[in-house]
Amino acid sequence: MSLLDRERIKLITLQQRIKSSLDRFELEFDAVMNGGSPLVQDICDHLLKGKSKRFRPTLLLLSAQHRDQVDPRAITAAACVELVHTATLIHDDFIDAALTRRGLPTINQAWGGAAALIMGDLLYSKALDVLCRSQQYFAVDLMARTTLLMSQAEMLQLELKYNLSITEDQYMQVIYQKTASLIETACRIGAHYNPAADGNLEAYAKFGRKLGLVFQITDDIFDYLGDERRLGKPTGQDWEEGRITLPLIAALKKAPPERRKQIVVEVTPGNGEQRSASWPEVKSFVTEFGGVEDAFAVAHRCGEEAKQALAPVASGTQKDMLAVAVEYVINRLH
Amino acid sequence: MSLLDRERIKLITLQQRIKSSLDRFELEFDAVMNGGSPLVQDICDHLLKGKSKRFRPTLLLLSAQHRDQVDPRAITAAACVELVHTATLIHDDFIDAALTRRGLPTINQAWGGAAALIMGDLLYSKALDVLCRSQQYFAVDLMARTTLLMSQAEMLQLELKYNLSITEDQYMQVIYQKTASLIETACRIGAHYNPAADGNLEAYAKFGRKLGLVFQITDDIFDYLGDERRLGKPTGQDWEEGRITLPLIAALKKAPPERRKQIVVEVTPGNGEQRSASWPEVKSFVTEFGGVEDAFAVAHRCGEEAKQALAPVASGTQKDMLAVAVEYVINRLH
Repeated sequence: MSLLDRERIKLITLQQRIKSSLDRFELEFDAVMNGGSPLVQDICDHLLKGKSKRFRPTLLLLSAQHRDQVDPRAITAAACVELVHTATLIHDDFIDAALTRRGLPTINQAWGGAAALIMGDLLYSKALDVLCRSQQYFAVDLMARTTLLMSQAEMLQLELKYNLSITEDQYMQVIYQKTASLIETACRIGAHYNPAADGNLEAYAKFGRKLGLVFQITDDIFDYLGDERRLGKPTGQDWEEGRITLPLIAALKKAPPERRKQIVVEVTPGNGEQRSASWPEVKSFVTEFGGVEDAFAVAHRCGEEAKQALAPVASGTQKDMLAVAVEYVINRLH
Repeated sequence: MSLLDRERIKLITLQQRIKSSLDRFELEFDAVMNGGSPLVQDICDHLLKGKSKRFRPTLLLLSAQHRDQVDPRAITAAACVELVHTATLIHDDFIDAALTRRGLPTINQAWGGAAALIMGDLLYSKALDVLCRSQQYFAVDLMARTTLLMSQAEMLQLELKYNLSITEDQYMQVIYQKTASLIETACRIGAHYNPAADGNLEAYAKFGRKLGLVFQITDDIFDYLGDERRLGKPTGQDWEEGRITLPLIAALKKAPPERRKQIVVEVTPGNGEQRSASWPEVKSFVTEFGGVEDAFAVAHRCGEEAKQALAPVASGTQKDMLAVAVEYVINRLH
């Protein structure tokens, strides 16, 4: 069994507890991914074949669940959150000129850049349109704000490309906006439809925000860990594409000035091939100065803060399951 | 004086009648285009330098104006409509690999494809976010639906690329969704804030829809007219990029079967250079069978329908000015 399968299984344990609402989510997601011109339909069929972990819908539905019930509007909102997530993946893959995603060719690879750009736009618009038609203006508000944060983060990431002077604060801002904000929004929308969560929206939102940070930090650690089975990706992708992430930021902070200077001079920006050639050196620098361990410590701290955020929430199965979600994300590393 | 300047002057005459609300629009548009990271700010500054005709805001404000007053929410909505329009231009230029727009380098040309893709996303999201923050959920609804229609049309256009069998109905559907729908929405939002337009929203919407069709058909005719000063673009761009537009569709309809067959066989899809080489032949085919005249007749008919759509609206300055807007669009051709 691959690590990827093992990881999925742990999430599935959690998902079995909300099986009936996840099944309803799948029906609704299928429905919003259907219709449209033949090309749109082809691309949607292709997207539906890719195995998504449904991480964001799971968190939304876990937050929404009360006495084994989930408000139908939460199901629709979960489909819209997954639509937005899918749209961002399509645009990200295009920007990175990625060839595969979830074991299948990316949209840019299979249908070209124009189709990828427009399909991303289409799924974003569809998410907002579906939320409007189901009159969930609370969720529309959040989603408009979240997609703005996400695109602002993408621009910031572009500005900070190759920049070895990026601070931990800047890194945290980028990952909050590009990843954690949508998970925060998923939890907030879920809680909004949970009658027992009344008055605790901020607790659920903070939980999602912190969990989202853990999710992105662990993802960034994977890029250094050297387990090529992990997520089906080779290591060093972030480095090659100019994204300076927490393990390297932490190592640069710890390294003595002369070693830091040396690495900065040796790995000045270059094209993909040059960067790919310098990857072994960057990786061993990060290992030497414990960058992965430090990044993991930050992830762990955020995970604890996520669980603590739920303090105002009444004890019970739901709270336990949300804590399990934190463990799942942290333990993807082991 | 160039044709472009002359055209602008006629629109300016109209715009002088709503000068104070257009000035407020400019302030608000500047404000929403400000803030953000340095790269976002640089790109926004560049976009603000390009001379937009403010055609959509003008129509929104003309529709909203009642006794020389315009609801402040209409000003905000006009800024959001212009944001969405700007976002689509950025994405369109990227898809077409266009080098210049409004006399300046395109975003893809000056900052690269990734920045163009993300800036488009950012401006779309910003438009929705600004509308949400000003609690104009009526406009949010319309805008979400409109951006969905627009991206669906872009996909349809991709599917119909190079396809000489495209029907006039398919063409009209594409141009309605990609161009007329946003102009329709601009007029509908304007009328929504016009106390005198109560009960006549559909009339204003139909006016905008028909005017939007005229706008796109005349734009497509420009691509055949051969006046290179026009819009600062050379002719044959649509042909080169595989967009089969009304003049050619009309000529293909009129040509006898053997001539039609001949043109279809001779101008099979090719790359930009091959297409650019076949352009003179396509152009003379369109001339021979009166494609431009037929397209103009359709534009003229849509223009009449736009004016007729306003029949339920009380006579007065506003109605007159909207009729002038139709004349302006039609007369861009002369």
